[in-house]
This record gives sequence, C-alpha cells and structure tokens, in this order.
Amino acid sequence: RHHHHVAEMLDLPFMPFCVLLGGLGFMCVAFVTAWCQRWRGGFALDGSTQMFNWHPVLMVTGMVVLYGAVALVYRLPATWSGPKLPWKVLHGALALAAFILAVLGLAAVFRFHNDHGTPNMYSLHSWLGLATVLLFSCQWLAGFCAFLLPWAPVWLRALYKPVHVFFGSTILMLSVASCVSGINEKLFFSLKNGTTEYKRLPAEAVFANTLGLLILLFGVLVLGALARPSWKRPDADSPDSRQ
Amino acid sequence: RHHHHVAEMLDLPFMPFCVLLGGLGFMCVAFVTAWCQRWRGGFALDGSTQMFNWHPVLMVTGMVVLYGAVALVYRLPATWSGPKLPWKVLHGALALAAFILAVLGLAAVFRFHNDHGTPNMYSLHSWLGLATVLLFSCQWLAGFCAFLLPWAPVWLRALYKPVHVFFGSTILMLSVASCVSGINEKLFFSLKNGTTEYKRLPAEAVFANTLGLLILLFGVLVLGALARPSWKRPDADSPDSRQ
Repeated sequence: RHHHHVAEMLDLPFMPFCVLLGGLGFMCVAFVTAWCQRWRGGFALDGSTQMFNWHPVLMVTGMVVLYGAVALVYRLPATWSGPKLPWKVLHGALALAAFILAVLGLAAVFRFHNDHGTPNMYSLHSWLGLATVLLFSCQWLAGFCAFLLPWAPVWLRALYKPVHVFFGSTILMLSVASCVSGINEKLFFSLKNGTTEYKRLPAEAVFANTLGLLILLFGVLVLGALARPSWKRPDADSPDSRQ
Repeated sequence: RHHHHVAEMLDLPFMPFCVLLGGLGFMCVAFVTAWCQRWRGGFALDGSTQMFNWHPVLMVTGMVVLYGAVALVYRLPATWSGPKLPWKVLHGALALAAFILAVLGLAAVFRFHNDHGTPNMYSLHSWLGLATVLLFSCQWLAGFCAFLLPWAPVWLRALYKPVHVFFGSTILMLSVASCVSGINEKLFFSLKNGTTEYKRLPAEAVFANTLGLLILLFGVLVLGALARPSWKRPDADSPDSRQ
C-alpha cells in the first residue's frame, strides 16, 4: 500500500503539533492584549473603557486558548495508561479556570455597560456569547457529576460521554464565532472618525482583523485535532472506568 | 450491557434527523428572506440597499443550508452500496450550485459597495467571508480533480480524502462564523436612530438575532451529524474506489 507509506510520512505527531498550537495560542493572547494596550487605552478596574478591555482579553484567554488546551488533555498519550483520576482532575480544574476567566470577562463588560447606561444583552454577539458561557457551565457541572463524583453508574457515564465530547467541540465553535463577531463589533464602535474609520483600514483594524483570523485558525486546529482518529485514546469508545 | 440498550433507544436514525434538519434549514432561508423583505426594503438588482439584500439571502442559502445538504450526501445509507459515481456527481453538482449562490451573493455586496463609494474588504466579516468562499473554491476544484476526473491515482485519492473531509467541516464552521458576524454588523449599520436603535432591541433585532442562532444551530447539527461514527459509511476508511 504505497499511499499508507506516504500518509505515515505526512502524519504529524501530536506533541510537535501541541508546540505549534501553544505558540499560536500565545500569539492570540499577545495580540488581543497588545490591541487593547496599544490602541484601546490599556487596562483598569474602574468601569471605564479600560475596564471593558479586560473583556476581550479574558474571553480569548479563557474561552478559546485555555479551553482549547483543556479539550486536548485526553489526546496526550500519557493519559492513556495508568490511573485516570489525576487526568480527570486536571481536565476539570483547567476547565474551571477557563470558566472563571470567562465569568470575570463577562463581569468586565456588564460593569462597563452599567456604568455607562448602556443596555446589556441586545446584540447577536451578546446572545451568542452568553449562551456559550451558559452551555459551558452546564457542560462543566454535568461532567463533574458524571465523571468525578464517585456515584454515577457506569452506564450513565458511557451514555453521557459522547454528549460531553460533542458539546466540548460545539462550545469551542460557539466561542470562536462569539470572538469574531465581538472583534468585528468593537472595531465598528471604536473606529468611527476621520482617518481612523474602520473602512479606511487603519493599522488597528488590520491588527485586530488578523487577531480574529488567528483565533479562527486556533479553533479550527483544535477541532481538527479532536476529530483526528489517530490521536484519540485507543480505547476511547469503551465504557468509562469507575475511579 | 444495560447502557447499550439505553443508547440504542436514544439513537436517532439519520432519516428523521434529515427531516428535522431540512425544516431548520428552511426556517433559516425563510427568516433571512423575511428579515430583508419586511425590515430592509425587499429585493432589487439596481445597486441599492435592495440589491445588497441579496447578499445575506444568497450566503445563508448557499454557504450554510445548501452546503450543509451537500456535506451530508454520503451519510444517506442509499449511497453506501451500488455505483458511487452518481452520488459523486450529485455531491459535486450541489456543491457547485452552492458555490454559484455564494459568488452571486458576493457580487451583490461588491456592486452595492462600488455604487455607494464604500470600500470593499475592510471588516473582519469581509476577510473571513471571502477567505471562506476562496477555501470553498479550492475544496471544490481539488475534489473535482481527485474524485471525479478519472486519472487521479488511488493512493492520491486515499491521501486527499481525509483532507477533503476536514476542510468540508471547517468551511461550514467558517461560513457560520461569517454569517453571525455579518448579521451583527448589518444590525449595527441599520438600527441607528431613536426607537429602532439596536440597543433598544426592536422587533427586527430580536428577529435577526434569532436568525443568527438558527444558523448556528443548523451548523452545529450538520457538524455533529458529520462527526457521528454510526452515520458514517461502514467502509469510509477504505481506499476510495476508482470510478
């Protein structure tokens, strides 16, 4: 089988992919931070637009980059043998950290809106974003109850596992769509006058558009890695063992 | 294995799912058409905002709903036996129809921009959307050359097939993200004054936000159906037979 040889030669192992993905994730966080620092006035906790700036940084860091790392924990070959419980605890703890960043990110934008008399929750971005974080909270809670609490029966774990896996990818997809619509919206809000109009494509617009594309690329690579059969735990379809 | 019985009871067969999905796809097209007809002034071919209105309708119809149907062709059990060529031709022809709708949808917005002196290709929505359509054109061309032209060697088909499958899902994800950012952007453009401000959440905003969520739901269901192992062709991993 000639094509099997070619396919094996082209097959990227998981660990080098992780290094690339980690670099890309770092770039996403660096770009969103640099955007807010360089063009949007930096960061503060006073309800001003500098408080708002925590919103994009915390959402991209929590709901995309850290979330992506959480989703890929079980793709590490080290998790495939030995006791599962430490890895489950790591997966759950990192997911909780991502969720806390997301909640802080929501707090930043709600506080900013309330201090400026701006209504909350009217744009499609806000509907989608809040739905994503709410789904994530359900996902975390259901995962905790089914996989970490000791009294869930094995058949329930086996039944819920594909649902958890499906929503794991879905929530990342919704996060990425939320980020893209949010960056787009923020640029229309911020770049309004004269030479900095969005449609004149000033440096900030090029930079933030690039950030959007980097986030999309990160999301697509994580979703592709999750779907890749050869990177899944060999016994992934067997019933989940009780710990 | 108790949980296997429960899982089988909960397992939705593909055909009823298709009926549900078809209903949802129809709702997406109906909602985007109704939005443009009822609130955005209807349709025309004169370079005005009524010409622009073809853009959302054609993109949602072509790049989401028809594209979703194209992606699911090989999930029909009828395609699993007998000659493959007619199904390949159907898949390629429907994909071409979706691509033509997308190109017409792009023509509508470029013509509208040009007639109004508005620059093209500055927003993140436009970058993402055009990248998606360009990726789709590469996907179609590569799929045509590898799977429909008779002279592609079997090993090349086998090598390219997982790439085609991966980009099939990726392009749908990018389409959905483009639609969400586009609807969000259009509502900020259109709902500006007094009682119809977007932030006051007039009926149009609720309607178009709902359209955005319906598109997301459609995309998530198609991606979930594509990923579902039990709906894949049993021999999907074997080398593609030459037709």
